[in-house]
Amino acid sequence: MESFLARLQRIQSSKQSNLSVGLDPDPAKMPPGLLSTASVADAVLQFTESIIHATSSFASAFKFNIAFFEALGADGFRVLRDALSAVPENVLTIADAKRGDIGNTARFYAKAFFEDLEFDGITISPYMGGDSVRPFLEYGDKGVFLLIRTSNPGGNEFQTLMVGEDPLYQVVAGRAVEWAADLPGTIGFVVGATDLDAMGKLRVAHPDVPFLIPGIGAQGGNAASVMDVAGSGPVLINSSRQILYASSGDDFAQQAEIESEKLCLELRQSSSKLH
Amino acid sequence: MESFLARLQRIQSSKQSNLSVGLDPDPAKMPPGLLSTASVADAVLQFTESIIHATSSFASAFKFNIAFFEALGADGFRVLRDALSAVPENVLTIADAKRGDIGNTARFYAKAFFEDLEFDGITISPYMGGDSVRPFLEYGDKGVFLLIRTSNPGGNEFQTLMVGEDPLYQVVAGRAVEWAADLPGTIGFVVGATDLDAMGKLRVAHPDVPFLIPGIGAQGGNAASVMDVAGSGPVLINSSRQILYASSGDDFAQQAEIESEKLCLELRQSSSKLH
Repeated sequence: MESFLARLQRIQSSKQSNLSVGLDPDPAKMPPGLLSTASVADAVLQFTESIIHATSSFASAFKFNIAFFEALGADGFRVLRDALSAVPENVLTIADAKRGDIGNTARFYAKAFFEDLEFDGITISPYMGGDSVRPFLEYGDKGVFLLIRTSNPGGNEFQTLMVGEDPLYQVVAGRAVEWAADLPGTIGFVVGATDLDAMGKLRVAHPDVPFLIPGIGAQGGNAASVMDVAGSGPVLINSSRQILYASSGDDFAQQAEIESEKLCLELRQSSSKLH
Repeated sequence: MESFLARLQRIQSSKQSNLSVGLDPDPAKMPPGLLSTASVADAVLQFTESIIHATSSFASAFKFNIAFFEALGADGFRVLRDALSAVPENVLTIADAKRGDIGNTARFYAKAFFEDLEFDGITISPYMGGDSVRPFLEYGDKGVFLLIRTSNPGGNEFQTLMVGEDPLYQVVAGRAVEWAADLPGTIGFVVGATDLDAMGKLRVAHPDVPFLIPGIGAQGGNAASVMDVAGSGPVLINSSRQILYASSGDDFAQQAEIESEKLCLELRQSSSKLH
């Protein structure tokens, strides 16, 4: 059984890409042309499939933001499943679900995302502790990205509180690695691009843990600086809006392709300086 | 616009019930008879509707554990929506979803749960801070129960860490109340029955905040002690397994009715000693 981390590294080295394309299909931001000829659900599917086709040569992962599919109501599951089936073999799929519940309940979420939808990885919130995370880790070949240091404004409210000598995010990261000690290649961290100091500390303490890094582009983080700070270990740098909404016209897919290639090459360049 | 808290208090005083019935329909625990005549999704719907009909006289709220519906795949949304429509007017519905994501994404979850499914309340994880919670609060008439001190074993790993003089759960509770300061009657706390000391401290600091209290029965908490410690303010005491799986035979609904009445009366007795 190949671990998530091994698969990530194999795909990244063959494609020379650290890019994750975030799929947050917001009907209000999609080209109006798409919406005029289809139901909202079908327009979201068409938009998402087009983005996948246009960017999959440059992406090592697609991060599906589950909220945008759940907001489609009864059609959400179908749209998500159909969009997933458009992803080629050599791109990983991550459910950005940020779930976190007691063990018995966590098993049901794990079934939904890992068995029914066959995602390769998921994002999970750590507040409820180890028994809420283990059911996802125990698949063994799936990736579990724990929220460690998030890039949103509220990320400063609790994550950076000092617990003794260390900020809470470091305590959580240390504990997460312990939960996965017997399951190599399963655990990853979500670390926002907006706090490079935290990212650096986490990389020093955890040289081999993959980081899923949101917050470049719209949220202000810079791709090259992120590679400098964290690129000595495995990283997936996520861009959503910058790629998805590169154009609001009918050429949205073409512009998304251009934008994703640009970002992929920029990351490749920064990476080659490191190695 | 009547706030969630005002509605909760109105319903609780008219029904004299502090009981929340937790709907965690696990096919593996449901009566085998149900599953032999229907698809898993339809059996889950039939089971959930039967429990709702049997217990709604004694419950002030139904807490739907969303994982168990998502695990039904494409049928999950339909089953959830149909089960919700079986809930009578005088029982509140809470989506036990434990979501928590950046503001833009949170708005999509809020739409899914509050607009499409018309839940009265939701549970939310606090790790990402205020901007991940505000979109739920801003509906104004919905209840937002923040995970503060959870009853699972892993709840001890981070929630009780000391941040300066206070445990993290107290810091989170204090901050949560600030987020909702301009939106009266919107915020509530999830406080497990397994840590009465924490519950007591939270009640002293927040006399008027509603507590949603899991962890009695299967998880070891005791209903009467909980009422003693927290019953001076608004409380919803949740029981799931003890009611749902009171019998594994065809009389499951009848036994659930008996069990929910027993628990409702037990809570009523403890409550009357307080007032």
